[in-house]
Amino acid sequence: MDGVALPRGFTAHVANIGIKDDTDDFVVIASDRPCAASAVFTRSRFAGPSVELSRSHVADGSLQALVVVSKNANVATGPRGLADARELAAGVAAAIGGRVDDVLVTSTGVIGRPYPMGRVRAGLAGLQAPFTGTDARAAAVGMMTTDTHPKTALATLTTSDGATATVVGLAKGVGMIEPDMATMLAFVLTDAGIGRRDLDGAFRRVVDRTFNSLSVDTDTSTSDTAAVLANGAAGPVDPADLEAALDVVCLDLTRQLAADGEGAETLLVVRVSGARDDAQARRVAKAVVNSPLVKTAVHGADPNWGRVAMAVGKCSDDTDIDQDRVRISFGEHEVYPGAVDVTTLARLEDYLRGKEVHIGVDLGIGDSDWTVYGCDLTDGYVRINADYTT
Amino acid sequence: MDGVALPRGFTAHVANIGIKDDTDDFVVIASDRPCAASAVFTRSRFAGPSVELSRSHVADGSLQALVVVSKNANVATGPRGLADARELAAGVAAAIGGRVDDVLVTSTGVIGRPYPMGRVRAGLAGLQAPFTGTDARAAAVGMMTTDTHPKTALATLTTSDGATATVVGLAKGVGMIEPDMATMLAFVLTDAGIGRRDLDGAFRRVVDRTFNSLSVDTDTSTSDTAAVLANGAAGPVDPADLEAALDVVCLDLTRQLAADGEGAETLLVVRVSGARDDAQARRVAKAVVNSPLVKTAVHGADPNWGRVAMAVGKCSDDTDIDQDRVRISFGEHEVYPGAVDVTTLARLEDYLRGKEVHIGVDLGIGDSDWTVYGCDLTDGYVRINADYTT
Repeated sequence: MDGVALPRGFTAHVANIGIKDDTDDFVVIASDRPCAASAVFTRSRFAGPSVELSRSHVADGSLQALVVVSKNANVATGPRGLADARELAAGVAAAIGGRVDDVLVTSTGVIGRPYPMGRVRAGLAGLQAPFTGTDARAAAVGMMTTDTHPKTALATLTTSDGATATVVGLAKGVGMIEPDMATMLAFVLTDAGIGRRDLDGAFRRVVDRTFNSLSVDTDTSTSDTAAVLANGAAGPVDPADLEAALDVVCLDLTRQLAADGEGAETLLVVRVSGARDDAQARRVAKAVVNSPLVKTAVHGADPNWGRVAMAVGKCSDDTDIDQDRVRISFGEHEVYPGAVDVTTLARLEDYLRGKEVHIGVDLGIGDSDWTVYGCDLTDGYVRINADYTT
Repeated sequence: MDGVALPRGFTAHVANIGIKDDTDDFVVIASDRPCAASAVFTRSRFAGPSVELSRSHVADGSLQALVVVSKNANVATGPRGLADARELAAGVAAAIGGRVDDVLVTSTGVIGRPYPMGRVRAGLAGLQAPFTGTDARAAAVGMMTTDTHPKTALATLTTSDGATATVVGLAKGVGMIEPDMATMLAFVLTDAGIGRRDLDGAFRRVVDRTFNSLSVDTDTSTSDTAAVLANGAAGPVDPADLEAALDVVCLDLTRQLAADGEGAETLLVVRVSGARDDAQARRVAKAVVNSPLVKTAVHGADPNWGRVAMAVGKCSDDTDIDQDRVRISFGEHEVYPGAVDVTTLARLEDYLRGKEVHIGVDLGIGDSDWTVYGCDLTDGYVRINADYTT
């Protein structure tokens, strides 16, 4: 998606400050006024100082800017790491003339190395507010680590005054992705006007159905952050309309993140229905989407539905799951129970060769359902991750 | 380990009956008398009829024979699958002149396909008791699916009468391995004499520290079975001595299973110490050994210890884990906290190129510890599993 403009009132500064190489690695996005804001973070016990600081900054429901340092996570860096994160926030606040505690600090990349602070300070010195950047895609590029392409998404809605408000999403992340609260980094910016409490409720509900339903490799980052900033420049909106627009943007980003999982060639969508409750549906769906044997079968276009049965069976604490009531489908084809003839097998192989594969599991217990998003497991994933730091 | 003889009183029949190809796929091991026995099984909700039947057969603590059909799991095969398993047990019982409910039935391989019963019946017709086979290795070969080599283990102990009793273990399994009760298939045969209750208690404790601490790929089989048969032919033993011998045999098999994980090139041993309790130590150790990013780093000999920190951090419900008290080591080298200099990095790379890598995590909370066994994640795993049924 080329040329997505930031919502009115938002501008971006995107630069290379030499964190690792000569690609863009320093992004600041600021609003011309304080915004209603909400954010969710990783629950990791090794969460970095960026997360610690940002959690406290967003606690009052207000933010004005966010800064991203990519290719260094500033995690497991001790007291020095926290001091560096504070200095980063202070530098951004000074540049835009805002409050330090209205700055969200985020960082992803290698763990265990301090920031090269000389370069970070030079980067801060280069900030000239107001920024001139208005292209969301350029900002998303600056956030990338091993992403193969930037991820942006757009939705619009109508304000109470009949004007058009826009919702723009930016995300990055390809590995170490099974968000527990949010994916790697995902930012949603809007000029819609909404109260802090309404925004927070809507965003948390949306994140649960989108970023929290995404898994690339079961590994949870130390840096996951998802945030929304609403500056109200377009005028007030109906909170339900904004929630619908947030849902469109976050689901779009979630699918892009899954499809661009490290080494991924296929977007895998698993929907579990007929569950006792949402939690069960999600637990079973995660077991399927995370199974390396299911993921490799999808990669090999192997219609080995027995592996889906195996993954469902792994949920052994769900004693109400009865293999005689379970139904399994690949796309439109039901594969269990019942025999799969040779013609169907051939059709299934064709189906599995597509860019997007849907696996359906009906538990036959209740009427709750949940959908999760993942990707196949390829030798590309192994290659990328067997040689990352060096 | 070549030429491990079965303990006295046990004989084996190993044959090819054409389940999938022309390699051995049908193994029957029988004792000349009923044995004290114990067995643990997968908790999968898609457990097959072999597991269902065997669970009921071992309930009285007595078994005389076991049969293995390899390369077809007889799972998700409906009422027909259960009838086939019963027929298999009955055929073995008739051949050895034993009771049907003293026969353990096991089966691993592709899921969702009925046995070719014509071939199974021909195989049963070929059984001539007493069997002539006494080589444990040949029996272990007949159990293999995608294993690259058979797995046997041996220990000896002294009976109350001063005689020598032997404990022989046989196992198979390379993928779909994160046993919840036991690994794929593991059998331990001994001529030691022991009461049923003592045997059951000892075996369950040993399985917990060995097979249940093994993970190749987080996927739990529908067919996992671990069983011990003690026929007493060597005379009575001290139960504690037998438990020690079982521990040696089962730990040996566990390490062999981990090292022969699908595509594996490195045995990965993760020990978590300083935990609040055993459950916490095991949970954190499993998070590390199962992390695809840790597994690929080991594969690439990449001393990226930040991924171990990430995996520890994933245990977010363990709120007593404090990153400032955690210590992480690779072999003898402590890597966190503190800086890792270039010389150490080079030494770590050398260490990670070995056939066996030990990762240590001390949580600094209490004094419990647990060790788990796994392997690296390689493109070989992806290749093997992207093309298995076809």
